[in-house]
Amino acid sequence: MQQNYQQKTLGILGGGQLGRMVIQSAISYNIDIHILDPDPNAPCKSICQKFVNGSLNDFDTVYSFGQECDTITIEIENVNTEALQKLADEGKDVFPQPHIIKMIQDKRLQKQFYKEKGIPTADFILTEDKADVIRNAFFLPAVNKLGREGYDGRGVQILREESDLERAFEAPGLLEKLIDFEKEIAVIVAKNPNGEIKAFPVVECAFHPTANLVEFLFSPAQVSDDIEQKAQQIAIQVIEELGMIGILAVEMFVTKSGEILVNEIAPRPHNSGHHTIEANFTSQFEQHFRAVMGMPLGNTDTRCPAAMVNLLGEEGYTGDAYVEGMDEALSQKGVYVHLYGKKTTKPFRKMGHVTILDNEVEKLKKRALHIKEMIKVKA
Amino acid sequence: MQQNYQQKTLGILGGGQLGRMVIQSAISYNIDIHILDPDPNAPCKSICQKFVNGSLNDFDTVYSFGQECDTITIEIENVNTEALQKLADEGKDVFPQPHIIKMIQDKRLQKQFYKEKGIPTADFILTEDKADVIRNAFFLPAVNKLGREGYDGRGVQILREESDLERAFEAPGLLEKLIDFEKEIAVIVAKNPNGEIKAFPVVECAFHPTANLVEFLFSPAQVSDDIEQKAQQIAIQVIEELGMIGILAVEMFVTKSGEILVNEIAPRPHNSGHHTIEANFTSQFEQHFRAVMGMPLGNTDTRCPAAMVNLLGEEGYTGDAYVEGMDEALSQKGVYVHLYGKKTTKPFRKMGHVTILDNEVEKLKKRALHIKEMIKVKA
Repeated sequence: MQQNYQQKTLGILGGGQLGRMVIQSAISYNIDIHILDPDPNAPCKSICQKFVNGSLNDFDTVYSFGQECDTITIEIENVNTEALQKLADEGKDVFPQPHIIKMIQDKRLQKQFYKEKGIPTADFILTEDKADVIRNAFFLPAVNKLGREGYDGRGVQILREESDLERAFEAPGLLEKLIDFEKEIAVIVAKNPNGEIKAFPVVECAFHPTANLVEFLFSPAQVSDDIEQKAQQIAIQVIEELGMIGILAVEMFVTKSGEILVNEIAPRPHNSGHHTIEANFTSQFEQHFRAVMGMPLGNTDTRCPAAMVNLLGEEGYTGDAYVEGMDEALSQKGVYVHLYGKKTTKPFRKMGHVTILDNEVEKLKKRALHIKEMIKVKA
Repeated sequence: MQQNYQQKTLGILGGGQLGRMVIQSAISYNIDIHILDPDPNAPCKSICQKFVNGSLNDFDTVYSFGQECDTITIEIENVNTEALQKLADEGKDVFPQPHIIKMIQDKRLQKQFYKEKGIPTADFILTEDKADVIRNAFFLPAVNKLGREGYDGRGVQILREESDLERAFEAPGLLEKLIDFEKEIAVIVAKNPNGEIKAFPVVECAFHPTANLVEFLFSPAQVSDDIEQKAQQIAIQVIEELGMIGILAVEMFVTKSGEILVNEIAPRPHNSGHHTIEANFTSQFEQHFRAVMGMPLGNTDTRCPAAMVNLLGEEGYTGDAYVEGMDEALSQKGVYVHLYGKKTTKPFRKMGHVTILDNEVEKLKKRALHIKEMIKVKA
């Protein structure tokens, strides 16, 4: 039914910064949002219409939370998909669909999916435990990934030579050929229940050398039109093959030979789309609730070139957060600071991000580095 | 002290759509916001960190509300300024300053202020009551304004000829020469405690023929550079003469002879600045809390030409609000719908607004009229 989203309640599993930015955007539409999060001080707590403090992995907690909502979605993959499936079976709109979340939760199933569907991705072998990894030493240099529970850089490590093998994960995972990539790029794509599909332009990600988190992001990516089109086509292929409704971030490698390989996917708003709040006609956060609530998808065109810098908790500081350099940053034209409402900081915790707009693309890298030096989250 | 806003609580008197859009923007800065409003279902209720349901005109209510805040501001002028003065005397940051709010509450004092300070404004005479207006019939055609309590078009009427006199207000007010203006324009200007002043570009307002509410707004205004500069200078002159800290909307007439006359001022975010959310580098709502909390003011440049359409409750409908035409509007590029979280509608109630971005200025009027026809708030 058209426009049925006006009287609906949206339930989100997870109340972190992604949910917070969804709420900030949804305020413009009078959408009632309920949040479930294990942290009693989750970033969404005081701005949602109902906050439930509880486990995302407990069947009963998730099931009873969902019963009060019309549409249920996620801002983190690690949730109880059985409860979500029951809610879906009972007629609730649950997007992304529970079986897709379940598959994406396991990187082993993710990789097999790419293989089956002919989606380009790095060669890999599944490993059951450390001994199994050691047996497959011939596959080195490789990336050793845990099958489950990896998040924000955890559960992923590079094994270059035999001597690294003793660090191998002692749990089901996989070994992926280490790709000597030229660039890491990402495309965020969305699909709504009416079958409408829209992809955002390709962005370029620069990861933190040790923390394995996105440190800088640039939009548009400095790639050829051919790569731009291929990457968007691959993202659309993935969401279509999944048959998924919602928003999907597709992280990809561009190899030195110009090949595009899918690295990982996330069925939710993603760090690689934070700049869209100011830099695109529609933000990824608005696109997320538009997609899951059956609203028309928003236009994804770029309004202005942008860089995004993650504000990670400074190394050596743990405790009540204090942001250094705010005044200097806020005095600059086209600089947008987003803090996530987290009272305490710790090394590499995602405390916020900054988006920089500049029509002169070549200035963006310099300005991003400058902001990175200027703003420090300390305690 | 620099950056002291990070640990501060902002109290806002009034929890309507203006406060709601301030909160939506302040979420990016972890600012705790407390709201006082007489409506238990005020638009800000479920998104602020503390909501107090109470009168804005009761001394004790306002005083005790303010005691829990570090900075206190307003989103409506009709508040108890004595309580605000006491809070200021006791060391709270109260911006705009109470004595300025008190003066602006009374259109008679406002007009005298313009006269004293040499700020161009239409000729006027003060009237004590209906009989007094009738005695001054020679001043017709004129605009008869109530001194106090006028809001959203109430308390203002045009008296063209003797026969209109019996409609004259039976209370202290004023008679203002009816200006045969070419255009109505507005400039929003802000000043922070460090003396920094920034004005937004001039916008052009088109009022509803009968409801006397802004119906359409266009940015940039179609005026000469000379008028653009003069209007901004006048707005800056007004905030400087007031010595006011905060954000000030200055509504002006451009006469057929190219003269600029100040009509009215509002010491808060204003309907003539709603487009700044998407159309300017900084929104008026962010500029408001930046100013009163001592943050650096944001850049006010235009990012894209825009039109703004108010969504007023449709005539003939009262009750639970339903917005017609949402899907069609949301499918268009550069169209931004903002609903104000009001459950019930009534004729001419401000239920939301829509901003339209288009680089082709000449298309804006047509698109605004189209949106106006497309979206209807009914019950």
